[in-house]
Amino acid sequence: MSDGPLLKNLSLNQITTEQWNLREAVEGCVRKEIPWISLWRHKIEEIGLAESKRIVTDAGLKVSSLCRGGMFPAATAKERQVKIDDNKRAIEEAAELGTDTLVLVCGPGPDRDIDAARSSVENGIEALVPFAESHGVKLAIEPLHPMYAADRSVIVTLDQANTIAEQYTPQQVGVVVDVFHVWWDPDLYNQITRASGRIHGFHVSDWIVPVPDMFKGRGMMGDGVIEIRRIRKAVEAAGYHGPIEVEIINQSLWDQPGDDVLKKIKESYLKHV
Amino acid sequence: MSDGPLLKNLSLNQITTEQWNLREAVEGCVRKEIPWISLWRHKIEEIGLAESKRIVTDAGLKVSSLCRGGMFPAATAKERQVKIDDNKRAIEEAAELGTDTLVLVCGPGPDRDIDAARSSVENGIEALVPFAESHGVKLAIEPLHPMYAADRSVIVTLDQANTIAEQYTPQQVGVVVDVFHVWWDPDLYNQITRASGRIHGFHVSDWIVPVPDMFKGRGMMGDGVIEIRRIRKAVEAAGYHGPIEVEIINQSLWDQPGDDVLKKIKESYLKHV
Repeated sequence: MSDGPLLKNLSLNQITTEQWNLREAVEGCVRKEIPWISLWRHKIEEIGLAESKRIVTDAGLKVSSLCRGGMFPAATAKERQVKIDDNKRAIEEAAELGTDTLVLVCGPGPDRDIDAARSSVENGIEALVPFAESHGVKLAIEPLHPMYAADRSVIVTLDQANTIAEQYTPQQVGVVVDVFHVWWDPDLYNQITRASGRIHGFHVSDWIVPVPDMFKGRGMMGDGVIEIRRIRKAVEAAGYHGPIEVEIINQSLWDQPGDDVLKKIKESYLKHV
Repeated sequence: MSDGPLLKNLSLNQITTEQWNLREAVEGCVRKEIPWISLWRHKIEEIGLAESKRIVTDAGLKVSSLCRGGMFPAATAKERQVKIDDNKRAIEEAAELGTDTLVLVCGPGPDRDIDAARSSVENGIEALVPFAESHGVKLAIEPLHPMYAADRSVIVTLDQANTIAEQYTPQQVGVVVDVFHVWWDPDLYNQITRASGRIHGFHVSDWIVPVPDMFKGRGMMGDGVIEIRRIRKAVEAAGYHGPIEVEIINQSLWDQPGDDVLKKIKESYLKHV
């Protein structure tokens, strides 16, 4: 048995080919024999849910997850409800698209009170669980890198994500391990073990030096410093054998022909994941 | 008694006025009645240690710390020794300048093996402690923000810094709490309490949104999202009542007249720290 990952688990996270619309991304995956895709809502919105579903189903692709729900903290009760309602629509979309996983990027606080923002995240998840469960959709908390604590997510460690998730069954709430977000964490391997049975997604990219951009600065696997294979093996040892999403947010990849990007992804995946 | 910090504790970390040489920074502090200064080695090098000492002493300024030692991990034994030797020179310089605190920025790994790099840091500190102690200099481990894990420090949490420091007496090894580096940490206040008695420095700036630059992107206190006063009070509750260094690495500040920067620092310090 090879040391590398299985091609049957490879998933294109759609943000990696932001230059493509949904149809182009699906057709690209078919051409390059990538069996999974993770869909983003802004791409679905362009053509509508029914058409998105038809394209993916006709192509025979499997949907590894929907990106994304979350963004819970809000300055007012009204705004909070708007966010909960939007999350419910995301859950419905996930179910309709045939994926059981909604990735949660939990959101920043509306002000300096980070403890309150973290409570808002917990409350938001609590409010969604029954709805998600009734749709057969698991909520997957993705801790983001601490450098996004002020503008994307106050949930910044796998420890936090596990602590929230453990209040529910694994079918209700789990975590996403994204190597870009967690590689620096001194407690990483303990927390992956702790997440056994409730890892609902595994995302790969790399941390390149220097990082070219705070948001669009991720690298192709192998081009950076992350021990990706070690983390993949830890995630597998914790019982996760599902799709592995390649999620690389990088302007230079978006400026290339999508087919070239998919070719590099497959090569780097086999060599470095 | 006011809720704000004491002016007698205000220290200018010299990197905040990178546009100034050492003499200019010292004279600026005198004009603005800032009683402390933290010196950087590249500024000392420009004029030599003896002259630097004379300028600071003649001005009646107190030196809160020397920045910086550390940078321990190395690819070869020879390179490692070069780094240890450089740290010993930094310890001698700190002692000569009349500060008892050498700030350690611990360094990145030479390769992907982050565990090995972290061990190198521990070994480097162990190798330095007797030398530092004999010079009356405390080693102060400054955990950096995890976004610097690949290029500046594999020590990224106060938990890691405390765990290393606790192997020694507080007079030998302690920690620096820099709000920019630790504000996101869900375990922050526990770790500050844990560090009681061995906090050897407290640095302030702010996290502005969006961050304009990975390295030179810190903000003036009050301009960002960090609960600076809350952290200052926690640090004081943990027994630290020493100098508070304003350490803002930001190109836009470096492009301003230094006196204007010092004026803003004093105002922001009193209002937001």
